[in-house]
Formats: sequence, structure tokens, C-alpha cells
Amino acid sequence: MTDWLAVDWGTSHLRVWAMSHTGTVQERRSNNAGMATLDQDGYEPALLDLAGDLLGTGITPVLICGMAGSRQGWAEAKYVTVPCSPPGIDRATHVATDDPRLSVQILPGIKQTSPADVMRGEETQVAGFLALNPKFDGVICLPGTHTKWAHISAGEIVSFRTFMTGELFALLSQQSVLRHNVTGQGWDAGVFADAVSNGMSNPAELAARLFSIRAEGLLNDLHADQARARLSGLLIGSELAAARPYWLGQHVALIGDDALCKAYGDALGAQGLPVERTDADRMTLEGLKAAYLGLKENTA
Amino acid sequence: MTDWLAVDWGTSHLRVWAMSHTGTVQERRSNNAGMATLDQDGYEPALLDLAGDLLGTGITPVLICGMAGSRQGWAEAKYVTVPCSPPGIDRATHVATDDPRLSVQILPGIKQTSPADVMRGEETQVAGFLALNPKFDGVICLPGTHTKWAHISAGEIVSFRTFMTGELFALLSQQSVLRHNVTGQGWDAGVFADAVSNGMSNPAELAARLFSIRAEGLLNDLHADQARARLSGLLIGSELAAARPYWLGQHVALIGDDALCKAYGDALGAQGLPVERTDADRMTLEGLKAAYLGLKENTA
Repeated sequence: MTDWLAVDWGTSHLRVWAMSHTGTVQERRSNNAGMATLDQDGYEPALLDLAGDLLGTGITPVLICGMAGSRQGWAEAKYVTVPCSPPGIDRATHVATDDPRLSVQILPGIKQTSPADVMRGEETQVAGFLALNPKFDGVICLPGTHTKWAHISAGEIVSFRTFMTGELFALLSQQSVLRHNVTGQGWDAGVFADAVSNGMSNPAELAARLFSIRAEGLLNDLHADQARARLSGLLIGSELAAARPYWLGQHVALIGDDALCKAYGDALGAQGLPVERTDADRMTLEGLKAAYLGLKENTA
Repeated sequence: MTDWLAVDWGTSHLRVWAMSHTGTVQERRSNNAGMATLDQDGYEPALLDLAGDLLGTGITPVLICGMAGSRQGWAEAKYVTVPCSPPGIDRATHVATDDPRLSVQILPGIKQTSPADVMRGEETQVAGFLALNPKFDGVICLPGTHTKWAHISAGEIVSFRTFMTGELFALLSQQSVLRHNVTGQGWDAGVFADAVSNGMSNPAELAARLFSIRAEGLLNDLHADQARARLSGLLIGSELAAARPYWLGQHVALIGDDALCKAYGDALGAQGLPVERTDADRMTLEGLKAAYLGLKENTA
């Protein structure tokens, strides 16, 4: 029987875990009903569509993290300000529903005043990592569309910084003039390593080195795999140059997509850094469980 | 009577000037029949559609610069390698046409081996500037989708470098998460100046400062005009940091869109640089005229 639902509701996806009171996963489901496809009235039907048959006759708690809590989402769950622990369910926003079987709570994101920054969803992955590694002090890097670097100390997110690296890669590889060169999904590890090094040593040249990918395609028939690896390496190298205060001399844990974490891990490894890679989905689930258990403690 | 046609055929536009032998413009026309809208068989009909009624009964020379000479254009006009003078009609590629009244020649672009780089169209604007300023020694900056910086000495393009700054601005302002902040066409000169300074002093932080525009929109209601000026300033500032070997201690001439040249002029002016702004269309026409007159000399 489903005791509660753990939900990760992002821009492009909806993921639901049917949970028991003891924290066991009974079933997991997902689809593409992300925030980008929904207006405010669409959230409850979308949730029932994916998971309605998992509900019993009583009230089922539903705990949500991610973009569903943004101003354009289901209901705004206002940011908590750093330094702070990853917010638990005591900071969550209750959402009224038509279906009386649902008791929906949305976890807040976190914000930083200076430099201005926000995250929504990643803080729950950090919570999951800290639940599994309660004594961790160091840096968590969450590669993605908007890569986050977070300083962790004494169980708190002390500061963080977001880089648009992943979105730049997507725009440049799919929509810019470089799309003629960056075709396919291939890779060249040697070219990537060189490009990371070039990106780190002269990040100002980024916009020029990007165009060189195009020029080398025209003049030297640069291979598509090399073009893709170079684009990624230049962008990640530039990011590493700016994120140096985060990672230098630190223990770094990576949470994110496997291929992307491998790329970041290779780039950081080349700087001589010990890097720990984790399972991103598991961190999300563990974060939601930690928040739910928090509720249990608070209401016991 | 039209003695020849001067044609600027770019990715997004077709511009035709009906010329007399003495270099007087008799008529100018333009439309959106750029390379992006045409396959190889479409060029001759597109030219006749816009300018067919300008032709006499004899043969009319047609001199073309721009992307029509690329591999995906009407016919490939192979690049000339720097250092070189802007290529004249003696380096042009003749294109066979069905209509016997046309004698079409396409001017080549120029290329650089290391760092790999290419331009196609801008070299004709450089030719026009040098026709009007034959003793110019210095740097020409051509802001645009792919901004070019060119070292000019003794009438030759010695070296050049392309920055994807304009394309990054278009992608980020229209397609990225920043489109929610960068709305409209407004401007804030003070914010632009600060952002140029920030971009120059720490270009590595670009991907993070870009996301800060989003965060400040969410947290501090950053105004759309300020967001747009900051995005532009960060990108141009980063470019200026990398292009410093080009402009430092130089006389800089700007050729391009008025608003964009004003932005570059303001940014360079803040560095204490004397900047000269020009009329981009006039430079293109003067470059085509210089190439046509070159033909006259060569065939006299």
C-alpha cells in the first residue's frame, strides 16, 4: 500500500515514487508532464493521471520538489535564504486540491542575495547527499542546464553559484552556426581535455574559440565528434576557471546526469582533484525521504 | 541606364545597387531573399525577380559579395589567405547563368590558418573603407552576428579574429531562460557601462553573471531595459578583454549596424580609445565599386 508519494516535478519531467512509511519504494513512474507543458490548473490532473490509481481511500501525503514550486508553477513555494540547511517539509507550502485524497506540499528552493542566485530542485538532491553523508564538508557540483556549485559546511549550504554552461552548450550545438559542425552525439576525450585546458587558461577568448570550431570545420574538416568535445570542453573549462574558489583544494561530489558528470569528473580529475560521483535520481529520492521523515518527527 | 549591378548577398538579405560606369548609384533595391531561403537553383531567379527589369538587352556585369559565395551558396568562391588585400574581381569566381544578359562574378571571402578563421562579406566592407581611407593603418572592428576584428597595415588585412558575441546575444535574449527578463528593445547606458567593465575584468565569470540576470529578475525585479543592457555589456566586455591585442593603443574604425556600433563605440570610448564610426552600407557599396573599378583597370 502507498503511504505517501515522493514527487520530483521539473521543467521537463514529472517523476513519482510510491513510498511506504518505512521509506521503501513500492513503485516508480515518470512522464514528460513537466512545468513547461502545464498551466496552473493542469498540475492536479497531471498528478492524478500519472499516479491516481496509487491512492487509497484515505488521505495520501504528496511531497514535491522542483520547478512546480516556482511562480509560474503549481503554487509558489518561496525561497529560503542561504546559509541554510536544505529546507525540510516544515518550510513547505501546502497546496489546496479538489481531490480530497491528496495532501500536497511543495518544498521551497533556496536563494542567495549577493551575488543574486537561486536554485529549485537541486537543494533536495543536496539534502539526499547529506542524508547519506551527514559529516560531509566540501563542495557539491550539480552539472546540468544550469550547473550549480555549492559550499557545504556543518550540514548547511553556505553559498552557491549557478553557471549557464549546459544551456549555452544546448543553444550553441543545436541553434547556432555551430550546429553544422556539432552533429551527432560522438565524443573525443583527448580533444575535450585540451579544450578544458584552453578554456581554463584563457576564458576571455571563449566567443572567439567557439567561432574557431566553425572555421576549422570549413577549413580543416574538423570531425563532428571533435567539434562536440571541443565545444563542451571550452564551456566547462571557462566555468572551472571562474569556479576555482569553489573547488580548489576541496573534496568535490558530483550529482547529475551520468555523461555530464563523467565530463566534469574528467575535467576536475585533470586538476588533480578527488571527485566523487553519485546517482542523481537516488539523491532526489533520499532528499524527499529526508524531508518526509522530518515531517514525521515534527508531527510525532 | 544600368551599366552594372553591385550586389551584397548575405544570409538573410539580398541588396542590389544599379550602377553607372562612373560609379553613380541609379537605384537601390533589397529584399529578404538571403542565402538561408535559397537552394542553389534559386539564386538566378531571385536576382532576376529583384532586378531583372534593370537589365538592358546587352550583357550586364553583376558583382556579388557575401554568403552567396559560400559552399552552400550559389557557387563557392574559395577563400583567399591573409595577409592579403581585400580580394578584387581578379580573384572572383564566374558563375554560369541561364539568362544570357547576366555575367555574374562572386568575390571570395578570406581565411586565416592559425587561429583558424574565416570571413565572407566583411572583407568587401574593409575594401570600401580602405578605398575611402587609403592610408589607414590600424584596426577595423565589424560588429555583428559574428563580430570581426581586423589588423590593417599597408592596405592589407594582416590578421583577424571572429567573436560569436552577436549570435550569443540573440540566442540568450530570445531562446534561453533569460528571454523572460530581456523583453523589449530598451536600454540603460549606465548598466551597460558597468557590465562592460565587469565583463572585461572577469571574463571567466560570464556564464555565472548571465544567470545572475535571471536571478536578479526573480529576486530584485531587474528591469527589462537593464537586463538587456547588462547582457549586451557582459558579452561585449568579455570580447574586449580577449580582443585587447587588437585594440590596445590603436585607432579603431567601426563598420556595422548603427545601434551595435554605438554600443561598441561607447565600450571602447570608456577605455579612452579614439573610435571612428562609418556607414556600413556605404562601405559595402564602395568595396564593390573598388572591385569593379579594379576590373576596369585589369581589362583596360
